[in-house]
Amino acid sequence: MTDSSTPHPAPSGSPADRSWWGWGTLDKALSDAECTALGQLVPGAADTPLPVPDVSALTLPKVRVEPPAALAPVMSSAPRDRASHTYGKAYRDVVRALRGDFAAAPDQVARPRTEQQVTEVLDWAAEAGVAVVPYGAGSSVVGGVEYRGREHRGVVSLDLSALDRVLEIDRVSRAARVQAGALGPGLEAQLRPHGLTLRHFPQSFEFSTLGGWLATRAGGHYATLYTHIDDLVESMRVVTPVGVNESMRLPGSGAGPSPDRLFLGSEGTLGVITEAWMRLQERPRHKASATVLFDDVHTAMGAVRAIAQSGLHPANCRLLDSGEAGLAGVARGGESVLVLGVESAHFPVDGRLSELLTLARDHGGAPAPVESGGADSAADTWRSAFLSMPYLRDALTRMSVVSETFETACTWDRASELYEAVRGRLAEVVKDVTGASGTVNCRFTHIYPDGPAPYFTVIAPGRRGSEVAMWDEIKSAAMDVLHDHRATVTHHHAVGRDHRPGYDRQRPEPFALALRAAKRALDPAGILNPGVLVDPAAAI
Amino acid sequence: MTDSSTPHPAPSGSPADRSWWGWGTLDKALSDAECTALGQLVPGAADTPLPVPDVSALTLPKVRVEPPAALAPVMSSAPRDRASHTYGKAYRDVVRALRGDFAAAPDQVARPRTEQQVTEVLDWAAEAGVAVVPYGAGSSVVGGVEYRGREHRGVVSLDLSALDRVLEIDRVSRAARVQAGALGPGLEAQLRPHGLTLRHFPQSFEFSTLGGWLATRAGGHYATLYTHIDDLVESMRVVTPVGVNESMRLPGSGAGPSPDRLFLGSEGTLGVITEAWMRLQERPRHKASATVLFDDVHTAMGAVRAIAQSGLHPANCRLLDSGEAGLAGVARGGESVLVLGVESAHFPVDGRLSELLTLARDHGGAPAPVESGGADSAADTWRSAFLSMPYLRDALTRMSVVSETFETACTWDRASELYEAVRGRLAEVVKDVTGASGTVNCRFTHIYPDGPAPYFTVIAPGRRGSEVAMWDEIKSAAMDVLHDHRATVTHHHAVGRDHRPGYDRQRPEPFALALRAAKRALDPAGILNPGVLVDPAAAI
Repeated sequence: MTDSSTPHPAPSGSPADRSWWGWGTLDKALSDAECTALGQLVPGAADTPLPVPDVSALTLPKVRVEPPAALAPVMSSAPRDRASHTYGKAYRDVVRALRGDFAAAPDQVARPRTEQQVTEVLDWAAEAGVAVVPYGAGSSVVGGVEYRGREHRGVVSLDLSALDRVLEIDRVSRAARVQAGALGPGLEAQLRPHGLTLRHFPQSFEFSTLGGWLATRAGGHYATLYTHIDDLVESMRVVTPVGVNESMRLPGSGAGPSPDRLFLGSEGTLGVITEAWMRLQERPRHKASATVLFDDVHTAMGAVRAIAQSGLHPANCRLLDSGEAGLAGVARGGESVLVLGVESAHFPVDGRLSELLTLARDHGGAPAPVESGGADSAADTWRSAFLSMPYLRDALTRMSVVSETFETACTWDRASELYEAVRGRLAEVVKDVTGASGTVNCRFTHIYPDGPAPYFTVIAPGRRGSEVAMWDEIKSAAMDVLHDHRATVTHHHAVGRDHRPGYDRQRPEPFALALRAAKRALDPAGILNPGVLVDPAAAI
Repeated sequence: MTDSSTPHPAPSGSPADRSWWGWGTLDKALSDAECTALGQLVPGAADTPLPVPDVSALTLPKVRVEPPAALAPVMSSAPRDRASHTYGKAYRDVVRALRGDFAAAPDQVARPRTEQQVTEVLDWAAEAGVAVVPYGAGSSVVGGVEYRGREHRGVVSLDLSALDRVLEIDRVSRAARVQAGALGPGLEAQLRPHGLTLRHFPQSFEFSTLGGWLATRAGGHYATLYTHIDDLVESMRVVTPVGVNESMRLPGSGAGPSPDRLFLGSEGTLGVITEAWMRLQERPRHKASATVLFDDVHTAMGAVRAIAQSGLHPANCRLLDSGEAGLAGVARGGESVLVLGVESAHFPVDGRLSELLTLARDHGGAPAPVESGGADSAADTWRSAFLSMPYLRDALTRMSVVSETFETACTWDRASELYEAVRGRLAEVVKDVTGASGTVNCRFTHIYPDGPAPYFTVIAPGRRGSEVAMWDEIKSAAMDVLHDHRATVTHHHAVGRDHRPGYDRQRPEPFALALRAAKRALDPAGILNPGVLVDPAAAI
């Protein structure tokens, strides 16, 4: 019943096109002139863009470890490889890359072509006292792929991107066995001929991998029901230093604590995810979407809550506050905008959309008039802006504008208060830190019956040379507000190294003991992504 | 926004009414005459029922440990308490209770009235080398509450039933903080005045607790979407020997591996769940149901699969094979029967039911004609039979009929084959073991897009005195078939002690190492439910 015939080839794409300092591909980065023009929209921004350094002229630390002969063919210490694997894609990462600060560069970048080579890298590293940082496509915005310790003889970035194939498709159960290094587009391209889709679209979709999604408990852009990748997992294969952990393919089980749930969110600290059986869906054939305007964001939150609790499960239910809506160009009159979408592979969805609009109207919303571009042109406008945002962020970064996001989740009883508290406190801090008022906008990226996942964007002019310190101060204040309001340190950006202080406050202490014990059992030499989730000292 | 005003009183119900040897309450147990009549339906059954022993005349092992003075008021070594806490409610438990075999009786039964007393029991037990077996309402059918070791100085059954209150209700987020000892009916009775429901209805609903559901990853009888209790948890409080583990109330989080998911399914081995914030729903106002007949069970499975993959999420989607349907009295002509139900608190559901029936018809089903009792009378007939089944099982047990169930889950690609393999192999084994043909029936209790959860019932005449050995032989053969077909050892009955061999084969070895390490970290003295999930020797 399983179709293991030749899978479609993954789309090729030369890594040489990929930006080594910022988001995505080099051809989509904004030009100097575009950066300058964009900077003029932010009062107080620099006049000229930070230059992009010449990658061949970078100063990198001396390489401390060489690979064993057997692994030499899949390891590289070329400057471009080391530089591009030093950081993720956080604001602070891009700033430091532009400044040519590569003190944290790994000694080697390993690109195994087989799972056996993954095992060999771990065996060698454990023996040699070398840290291993698992790396999908490097889209971490929380310092998840940046080694910051001193305890190891060297550091290897373990890049899984060569393991990018759909190995097997079970059409009957609608599932596929996929290698962890598959990027979003390559994965979908391999599923499309079978009429199937994973339907997991994080904003990083083009430049993040299945393994990264699993290791960080990523959230896709579908707003309800199947949001976190966790629920799409049927089974996983994880190479740990003490052996391969492969769970059974099961639609459900009650046999002890879920093995997969220990590795989901483990961020490369317990093992290296090499493949997973993922639950798929048929590609939707029926779609409908609409936007609803609200004069007041708190009224809008009430409507969103009613929808989240209605059991109607819209595919899209994204609330943009007035600032965010203005920036995305979907509302100019100071309204908050709710973008609604419904999809089905099986049945027309117009009735469902009507039910959603009824709920929204009953809760104070005004469905937007249909524009000439069609009923969903506001949704399209927003989606297109959404995908280009990281490139704009990089351009603003070059203009020394502090431009970054953070996200959280809380229960509905605290949502309005949290929204006001974050915006209020950040307005103060941004003013203190930057001297300008800046903007702090919010959207709800995901909603649940018991609460929303608010996502905040901060834009303010920075002082050239102090951008990282300025953002760190703003972010630190934001984390305090989240903690005070019992909101999570992260809904889908993971913990990495940047969220460790907040994570340590959020995580119950007995669970921390259990996690450290599990880490010691699976990674006795303490080589796996040291400093993430667990202190290196506690892990060995 | 939180309503912490006086919660409704839990319904009282004297523990004296509860059966100490079998299911539920004594008044609902079948009389001797009813047992005899029922036995006549099973060719080869005994002529007279096994007598129910006099609880005051039972032979119990000597009490080895006495409680410290501070805990004496909440501990009991009364024979009825010890006897009623010796076993769960598996077939083999009921047989042994009827035979007066209480060699495994706990020394003490503790009924803490506060969480602090739970902590005190654990502290004392760790100090005294006494095993603690957490006990909700004792509905385990897998030996989950029966101590079988020899390593401890004594055994305490830790009965949580006095901690049975809804402590707080958050109407806005639709969640409630509930003590772990709440039984199903008491929990729902406290939620009903608020128009809310947990909507989790395992077959054991009347005589199982929230804490038991969480510790065993219970499945409710809603067939799709929210089946396992896991997904209804917002946060948990767990008393471990090294401290209280309290997770944050969050609708979603991506901060490391989920702390709750380590304790969900931990079956009392890592800590004692004392309370949880649970996600609630509004009580449904719109309901519709129907039944569909199929000439062939495999055709029916195809229809069920189409429904599971349609995104329509019926509340009920229960497939009874012809034997099961005949026994439940919902089809007499050898058909397989699909019971469909749809519910909503918000919108009429007739359209949804039509869509489901269209799918079923397109896949070879014949919607049953509406009976005079109303459209859902077959569903009602079935549901009523469902709730009385454990009492019937006890009656058959008294007639020395081997009458037991086991359940599993597998992906759709293996479902038909598994069904035939289990029925084929069990027909042989039942014949070998009992000399009679017996019956092996199946229903699908839960369905997922990637597979069903089949539930098998075995009924065959046993030899008086050999019932347990006979069932163990049948069950062992069943476990082998499940393993060979890569089906889980349990979808919702938990592992306990009876499923350990199957669990050890199913569980990946690195995860076993991690779990043992977590156990050692949280329960360093190895007192919590020894022998479940982890070997006592490995745990200390």
